[in-house]
Amino acid sequence: MREPKDFLAEHVRDIPRSGIREFFAIAATMEDAISLGIGEPDFITPWHIRESAIFALEKGKTSYTDNLGLKRLRNEISRYVDKNYGVHYDSTCEIMVGVGVSEVMDCALRAIINPGDKVMYHEPCFVSYSPSVRLCHGEAVAVKTRAEDNFSFNIDEVRKAWTPGCKAIIINFPTNPTGGVADESQLRQLAEFVKEKDMLVISDEVYSELTFEGKHVSIASFDGMKDRCIFLHGFSKAFAMTGFRIGYACAPKGIIEGMMKVHQYAMMCAPIVSQEAAIEALVNGAESMEHMREQYNRRRDFIVGRFNEIGMDCHYPKGTFYAFPSIKKFGMSSMEFAKKILNDAKVAVVPGSAFGPSGEGFVRASFSTSYDNLVKAADRIESAISKW
Amino acid sequence: MREPKDFLAEHVRDIPRSGIREFFAIAATMEDAISLGIGEPDFITPWHIRESAIFALEKGKTSYTDNLGLKRLRNEISRYVDKNYGVHYDSTCEIMVGVGVSEVMDCALRAIINPGDKVMYHEPCFVSYSPSVRLCHGEAVAVKTRAEDNFSFNIDEVRKAWTPGCKAIIINFPTNPTGGVADESQLRQLAEFVKEKDMLVISDEVYSELTFEGKHVSIASFDGMKDRCIFLHGFSKAFAMTGFRIGYACAPKGIIEGMMKVHQYAMMCAPIVSQEAAIEALVNGAESMEHMREQYNRRRDFIVGRFNEIGMDCHYPKGTFYAFPSIKKFGMSSMEFAKKILNDAKVAVVPGSAFGPSGEGFVRASFSTSYDNLVKAADRIESAISKW
Repeated sequence: MREPKDFLAEHVRDIPRSGIREFFAIAATMEDAISLGIGEPDFITPWHIRESAIFALEKGKTSYTDNLGLKRLRNEISRYVDKNYGVHYDSTCEIMVGVGVSEVMDCALRAIINPGDKVMYHEPCFVSYSPSVRLCHGEAVAVKTRAEDNFSFNIDEVRKAWTPGCKAIIINFPTNPTGGVADESQLRQLAEFVKEKDMLVISDEVYSELTFEGKHVSIASFDGMKDRCIFLHGFSKAFAMTGFRIGYACAPKGIIEGMMKVHQYAMMCAPIVSQEAAIEALVNGAESMEHMREQYNRRRDFIVGRFNEIGMDCHYPKGTFYAFPSIKKFGMSSMEFAKKILNDAKVAVVPGSAFGPSGEGFVRASFSTSYDNLVKAADRIESAISKW
Repeated sequence: MREPKDFLAEHVRDIPRSGIREFFAIAATMEDAISLGIGEPDFITPWHIRESAIFALEKGKTSYTDNLGLKRLRNEISRYVDKNYGVHYDSTCEIMVGVGVSEVMDCALRAIINPGDKVMYHEPCFVSYSPSVRLCHGEAVAVKTRAEDNFSFNIDEVRKAWTPGCKAIIINFPTNPTGGVADESQLRQLAEFVKEKDMLVISDEVYSELTFEGKHVSIASFDGMKDRCIFLHGFSKAFAMTGFRIGYACAPKGIIEGMMKVHQYAMMCAPIVSQEAAIEALVNGAESMEHMREQYNRRRDFIVGRFNEIGMDCHYPKGTFYAFPSIKKFGMSSMEFAKKILNDAKVAVVPGSAFGPSGEGFVRASFSTSYDNLVKAADRIESAISKW
């Protein structure tokens, strides 16, 4: 007779739990620890956005919506993506609203992966990409990015990693956890490559508004690329709306049709109150978003400067709210370093190895906490390291 | 070179879109139509529950929560399930909050299905069960329920449908769309059967509070069954909270561990505002829920009585807010009937065939609309039929 755990599917048993969360369970029990570990804004959602959610509740908007999302929201998404990313999607059949980028990414992968299909992704990267591919019985193929290149994109590495059977590549610029970006010429090289290999690009652009240097460019806007691109975006990072769980996918109709089937059966629709709040964010959120970006920029300049002073070599991330300093010179693994610095300095950072093998030798320090906290954290780390 | 749709996985292409939604796209364009088609309460979420969501927004609760859900919510779920269903789940490791029963059902199936595994379900049933199994590369095995039995459970049919490789069975009592229930002795027979075959039960009990006759019993409460049961429940139906997208799974730790991996990567967590509202529903929602149930009961007695007068033979559903009358004597398919009655009487019902082949010969008429609307709808149907 089977025990409960024996009912689990084999591929699910083999997938590890996220290393981020495991680590922060420990940190959460420590009093007076400063966390640079959290992958979400420290800002509360701007009041005008929360207020629009409150209005929706007061008006009694508590029902299901269309599976694809409220028509008004899809119209605003179409306008926003057209204006800011230079690519037009038809709100009736090329846009699907979902429960955060997590869910629309999952729908994209489930819609396209046949068992055995390969999906490429650059690494270090967000913790879900590789396990999500494996949950679909696909094979995840990592492409390394390097500190020497500021973790930006390198087409030679992509060509090296490619093998027959690669159906799609996931990109995420600016990148969690490295803050790496890809400039237009790098993206054009990638576009040529995916056309050559008849592949699809799944582009997670959730950090794109948090770009500090240069202009963010979407690969979906290049000639002929809309038809081989799934553009994913959401409200969590730019508008500090993580708890609302709201994101969206834009793609050609033939692909949205497939994603929609997965979404319809597995999810039904995104929460209506979050959809109403998202409309307000798109229509009137630019100013509050700009304010938050300025804060992140100021904090970035401070903490990266301090890391370099301390001896934790760190490039200036061009986007996101993460610094990704090297800890190689301390002669320990990133997990050992994270544990030791939590213990000795009471500062929580995430071991780089949580973001894939190529994250080893680095830690992720989020600057989505107050400037004062960053000052304190840097002083504590410096003092602890000086005693080693 | 591939067209966008050519990137879709084969099994996704083969899965049809939900027949309910397709049909209502037509109905929505008609002025003055009365819809008996919607699968959600016509009530707005009770004010005290919406108010608790508003308080959460005012207090700035807009962040991620623990992947499993807020600890306070899991504690209240544990208490509620213990009190109302007679089975105790540990809130630290046996309860997972998700985005509606849809998502926790999807997590359950993804956690347990190896490609080729078979999952049984009784039919007619909710539209997602069979496609969701197929999305996991599983095989969905239908067990018929019959109008002669009031669409209740028949263990002989289960034994007949069983073949080697059946790993789990999905049950849903009271049943959408038939309002069928299973009494304690029928559930005990099923419990013996799943032990004999070393299977798991996935029990979707989302309509259980809307039981009009007899007492709802959960199979999870029987001796030895907790270890082979995934108990799924949510807030959409009993508390009229569909738009909040909030539900939960209770299961032994070894199974929640697997479901949690899927949920963590595919979803992160349920919306925090919905979680706060759900706490209020569990703690103080009994009275408003009881009020809604009384309304459904009164409407049920009316509309089922009228259907029988009109010649649409219909049993009294013992739960849910759906009547499932036979339309066999009109000599047309359920789709033809639904189209004709929409055209001639301007009343929208769902063809029974949308709920699986054994739903053919019936239509689903939801009584989650006002009593006045039901009176009007019945008169219109009667008048239209009298002219045929």
